[in-house]
Amino acid sequence: MKKIGKQTFLISSDVVIKDTFSIVGPKEGEGPLGNYFDMIIDDSSWGEKSWEKSEQKLQKKAVENLIKNNKIEPQEIDLILSGDLLNQIVSSSYAARDLSIPFIGIYGACSTMALTMGLASLLIDGGFASNIICVTSSHFCTAERQYRAPLEMGGQRPLSSQWTVTGSGAVLLSNHGNGPKIKNVTFGKIIDLGVSDVNNMGAAMAPAAADTIKQNLIDTMNLVEYNEIVTGDLGSIGKKISDEILQKEKINIDQRHKDCGMLIYDIEKQDVHAGGSGCGCSAVVFSSYYYKLLKEKKLRNLLFAATGALHSPTICQQGETIPGISHAVGISS
Amino acid sequence: MKKIGKQTFLISSDVVIKDTFSIVGPKEGEGPLGNYFDMIIDDSSWGEKSWEKSEQKLQKKAVENLIKNNKIEPQEIDLILSGDLLNQIVSSSYAARDLSIPFIGIYGACSTMALTMGLASLLIDGGFASNIICVTSSHFCTAERQYRAPLEMGGQRPLSSQWTVTGSGAVLLSNHGNGPKIKNVTFGKIIDLGVSDVNNMGAAMAPAAADTIKQNLIDTMNLVEYNEIVTGDLGSIGKKISDEILQKEKINIDQRHKDCGMLIYDIEKQDVHAGGSGCGCSAVVFSSYYYKLLKEKKLRNLLFAATGALHSPTICQQGETIPGISHAVGISS
Repeated sequence: MKKIGKQTFLISSDVVIKDTFSIVGPKEGEGPLGNYFDMIIDDSSWGEKSWEKSEQKLQKKAVENLIKNNKIEPQEIDLILSGDLLNQIVSSSYAARDLSIPFIGIYGACSTMALTMGLASLLIDGGFASNIICVTSSHFCTAERQYRAPLEMGGQRPLSSQWTVTGSGAVLLSNHGNGPKIKNVTFGKIIDLGVSDVNNMGAAMAPAAADTIKQNLIDTMNLVEYNEIVTGDLGSIGKKISDEILQKEKINIDQRHKDCGMLIYDIEKQDVHAGGSGCGCSAVVFSSYYYKLLKEKKLRNLLFAATGALHSPTICQQGETIPGISHAVGISS
Repeated sequence: MKKIGKQTFLISSDVVIKDTFSIVGPKEGEGPLGNYFDMIIDDSSWGEKSWEKSEQKLQKKAVENLIKNNKIEPQEIDLILSGDLLNQIVSSSYAARDLSIPFIGIYGACSTMALTMGLASLLIDGGFASNIICVTSSHFCTAERQYRAPLEMGGQRPLSSQWTVTGSGAVLLSNHGNGPKIKNVTFGKIIDLGVSDVNNMGAAMAPAAADTIKQNLIDTMNLVEYNEIVTGDLGSIGKKISDEILQKEKINIDQRHKDCGMLIYDIEKQDVHAGGSGCGCSAVVFSSYYYKLLKEKKLRNLLFAATGALHSPTICQQGETIPGISHAVGISS
């Protein structure tokens, strides 16, 4: 059995992050990580007639560029694992439609990047695949339309709300080659402490992030010391809550805990309230900034813990609370 | 590498279908397979205040009964893999919320049962898990509301339409014990031949079913002869189209091809037009009828090829066609 501790899987063979590709919208391009992204589009519709088609294009171009840059043929990719926030994950399936690569659709809300990378690592380590592409995306305008209100309404956003990242990140995992390696994977449990405010996703996801991080740290205690632990999109409110939950359990990660939702924007100058969010948030921050740090060995051990809120507008209108989940992958340069 | 041929993964160690549990609504209980189901509810709301909550209850009770009947503790289940048709797969995540089992959310539309069983088989064969529960559900009333029109409208259904099954099927896969064994898995490619009629899902999914079945038959040619090939929910129209596509390629499966959507209802007497559909369709037919046939060794080798249509109402309103996918698992008694 390749399970260590209660909930973590050990990756014993080489699972290499061979390359990544990130595309973001103009707002993300103007943020503090602007120089790290592979492509910045200057208009978030990208010439398409609907926001949904724009988001598909983001994901499709991320995968196409990843394949092209690595001079591989689509037939050499054993599987593509992807998912996104939209109903029936249409950004992912329509983006993958022309690729002719076996497709596994995933739903983990904003935890998707870590979930796909975790699953792909197990499939490669298990000897089932040589190359897998993991990809996800989000788009501010598709997410607002689906989860909140029509953009045209110009509704006021509460200060606890987060700004959905427009962007797509794609990762090529391989059983050979050079690059950072995935060392362990923790799939999270669903945690719901009763938050029902759909404008405070950070608070809804924070307990799940704390739970998965804690479990990974316990399970891998004798194996690795992480230099950084990065959550997906807790934002400033969620990050604080997750740190407090962990502190109560005598786990202090405060100093080495970063959050993709806080890294991608200049929170005050860019007026994004609690920070960035969306599947694309952790995907593009990982595929650009963190991949570069790991590749250049400026960061030795990273725990990448993306977080997702698993609600739907329908179910929240029926009075339900918001369950959160977090999946984590341990990566060494 | 455990891949055989182009697209199929060989399961070399024991991946046993240890047990299953199926719950269906009254209409399904009155159908030809009525005697095979573990539980038939007599009112499809099942005492809940919304159809969405009823569907969650179906899935939750299927899992709870599966765990109880097998006298295992939830902690002995390494992972739960589930998904459904609803936006953000809320039936699955809310059903799994109280289970405290690491959760992997999947989206494969009506192909979900085969997709989760396929993924779980790889994870068990790879040495990552001892026990995995795969589960999915659908509900006529949630699906109508989300994909088509409010039930209260009483809209006329075209003859090509299918009836979404109210039900949930859960499967316990294990690396030990007695029972039918999963021998191979083929993950499908997305196939879109341009069908845009949302009332003819069978036609949209048929080319994907044909593609995955063909690929599995080619990849496993020297290993296994299937006594039956069962598709998920093509219905009478889709089944005919998929058989015709395969016949053009000189593959004749007509005699041994069954379809869960045609087995679950008495198509004429129960007024379901082209047959049953929904994630729950293949899930409950497999978890009851086929599991029993395999367990009692009345069926030696089965190819279970569930099929899904990967569209959303939003994207179809924007003029898009409907991509299909099919995932297949080869099972021996």
